[in-house]
Amino acid sequence: MPYILIQVTREGVTPAQKNQLISGATDLVVNVLDKDPATTFVVIDEVDTDNWGVAGRSVTDLRNNA
Amino acid sequence: MPYILIQVTREGVTPAQKNQLISGATDLVVNVLDKDPATTFVVIDEVDTDNWGVAGRSVTDLRNNA
Amino acid sequence: MPYILIQVTREGVTPAQKNQLISGATDLVVNVLDKDPATTFVVIDEVDTDNWGVAGRSVTDLRNNA
Amino acid sequence: MPYILIQVTREGVTPAQKNQLISGATDLVVNVLDKDPATTFVVIDEVDTDNWGVAGRSVTDLRNNA
Amino acid sequence: MPYILIQVTREGVTPAQKNQLISGATDLVVNVLDKDPATTFVVIDEVDTDNWGVAGRSVTDLRNNA
Amino acid sequence: MPYILIQVTREGVTPAQKNQLISGATDLVVNVLDKDPATTFVVIDEVDTDNWGVAGRSVTDLRNNA
Repeated sequence: MPYILIQVTREGVTPAQKNQLISGATDLVVNVLDKDPATTFVVIDEVDTDNWGVAGRSVTDLRNNA
Repeated sequence: MPYILIQVTREGVTPAQKNQLISGATDLVVNVLDKDPATTFVVIDEVDTDNWGVAGRSVTDLRNNA
Repeated sequence: MPYILIQVTREGVTPAQKNQLISGATDLVVNVLDKDPATTFVVIDEVDTDNWGVAGRSVTDLRNNA
Repeated sequence: MPYILIQVTREGVTPAQKNQLISGATDLVVNVLDKDPATTFVVIDEVDTDNWGVAGRSVTDLRNNA
Repeated sequence: MPYILIQVTREGVTPAQKNQLISGATDLVVNVLDKDPATTFVVIDEVDTDNWGVAGRSVTDLRNNA
Repeated sequence: MPYILIQVTREGVTPAQKNQLISGATDLVVNVLDKDPATTFVVIDEVDTDNWGVAGRSVTDLRNNA
């Protein structure tokens, strides 16, 4: 009964991409750990670029200065 | 000083229901573990149905094909 | 399909208390939100008192100076 | 490669304050643990006051009765 | 710069399986979202079966009565 | 009432360093957001190097091949 959290910046992830993340992450734990897909949860958390920092700066700032 | 995260799909949870979740979860750790309610946090995280997967499919998809 | 995380300090929580937390948290979302218990996860995360801070001090330190 | 989650109520945190949280949290793990800032993530999660409880009541309710 | 948390019960996950989870989850966000693997984190959290509940019972209990 | 999670690899973080992380993270939200330290939680989560991946490889593997 795995729980998988996928946290990414909110930059236009489409419903089709979300479906691919959900099915891919589920397949991963089914294939590697022989888990039951029926009790495998995948949660995608989209985070505003103002709210995600790397190397001490927000992604908003990093994108503007790329 | 417990921290309780309640993650559910965003499907019309009302403020009254949120209050019940907050008071109920707080009572639970007070009653079972004798914790101090003053330092018990409850955070409710509502997740879009596109962003929650179970059995390899999004909840949006599962609801549409129920 | 709720996911509930209960994070507490690691201070001798017994298996019986864990069972009460699991059943109580499950009942809460079943009763308040009419969720299906079969797809309700409860995860209890016990945290060493050195690793939990409140008011700027570790719980280890707070316990020693209580 | 630390990951730091800062969860606060959604009550008007400005982009400038977010930048201060990101740089401050990054500096903290760099200074204390000698971590590489390039692989230090900071995620700020703003939570509606209806969805955050303390002492068994929502922050919305606590603010209204302060 | 995705962050992926894979939470599973602690039931003998081997280092080789952990490597497969890490590489598989990284490949997933690289392939689906075109993310940079260099800033993709995967964290595996193994949870004791006493501390994981489903359907209102601990996994320890469910395994014993399977 | 902030909640701050600091997730790092388990590589010999000392109690003194943990205290610095706790006081530093608390000061940060007090100074930037004017939060009350009495209801500021800091949780440090140490993760085995086998269980943390970056760039598709475990930290154990990265350390061995540095």
